[in-house]
Amino acid sequence: MPEQPSTPRGEATLRRILDAATEEFAAKGIAGARMERITTAARTNKAQLYSYFGSKEGLFDAVIDDRVDHAVSAVPFDVNDLPAFAVAQYDENLRHPNLVRLITWTRLERHPTGAWFDTPRHEPKLAAIAQAQADGKVRAGDPGDLLIMIMGMAGSWSPASSVYTASTSEPRVVHERRREILRESVARLIAP
Amino acid sequence: MPEQPSTPRGEATLRRILDAATEEFAAKGIAGARMERITTAARTNKAQLYSYFGSKEGLFDAVIDDRVDHAVSAVPFDVNDLPAFAVAQYDENLRHPNLVRLITWTRLERHPTGAWFDTPRHEPKLAAIAQAQADGKVRAGDPGDLLIMIMGMAGSWSPASSVYTASTSEPRVVHERRREILRESVARLIAP
Repeated sequence: MPEQPSTPRGEATLRRILDAATEEFAAKGIAGARMERITTAARTNKAQLYSYFGSKEGLFDAVIDDRVDHAVSAVPFDVNDLPAFAVAQYDENLRHPNLVRLITWTRLERHPTGAWFDTPRHEPKLAAIAQAQADGKVRAGDPGDLLIMIMGMAGSWSPASSVYTASTSEPRVVHERRREILRESVARLIAP
Repeated sequence: MPEQPSTPRGEATLRRILDAATEEFAAKGIAGARMERITTAARTNKAQLYSYFGSKEGLFDAVIDDRVDHAVSAVPFDVNDLPAFAVAQYDENLRHPNLVRLITWTRLERHPTGAWFDTPRHEPKLAAIAQAQADGKVRAGDPGDLLIMIMGMAGSWSPASSVYTASTSEPRVVHERRREILRESVARLIAP
């Protein structure tokens, strides 16, 4: 059973491990990640790392949880402004491309079909969409399908895009153009 | 310089190598693929494989070209029926998930940003969209953005989805429901 750090110094080590592991897993995937590189970058040792996370898989799961928690607070889901939610997702992928890369490695290495995580994560969003539909604010249709399509649209330029992945090195005007078409397209998608 | 096969038997060997390599690269990615597994599955040897493809990277590029050629003929681009194009893309990803997986490995391992291939592949599609816009059949907006969003919508349930990847083991009625919302949503997106 993995331990929890009991001192501020232990907390800081755990944070350094998560940050180093995020970079390593995002760059190399689950099979390709090297625990040596993570311990070196985090200035710790394998015994310490394994005492907190148990295994490479356990560390990967902790990294995903950590990054999802970050994304959920960075991109609040607002059923009353789904176009803004999609644009915020675009911006989050631009600022922090690692989460989509981590999810995509999971997709390729662990979950080729179905959900890549336990579905309950999306339950509150689905309930909010169903309520907005009942209130006549969002078109009819399966709430899951609508959410998946909104995420698909927001992810059109994501680090998993099969056409084009946006980056911060592009001109501001290009990002503005995409945000505008994304905002307007999601509004079209959900209009009652 | 890689050779071309000069006999029907050579052609058959080359085809077996491409098929075995498609499976291996789609499952394991570029770094993770093992040439031994490909030669064994293709009932050939390394000397023969390298004479045709030069290197592991050369073989990967040949696999991508082969699968893109297949997809382009399986899913014809029709600017006059973009909703049907998106649905055909959904069906193609269901029948042949390997191309999206191959593209996604490329994304993670080689091209974290920008296009994953030379842009000229999409030039005829962009020209057709621009013409349809000039004719008043498709809404205004950057043709590249529109194409990327249509691909993003069609890929919402793809093997690179960050939410849910469709599979042939799901009931027919579920696929019909998704095709319907996809068709209708692309129609909303492009309406003038």
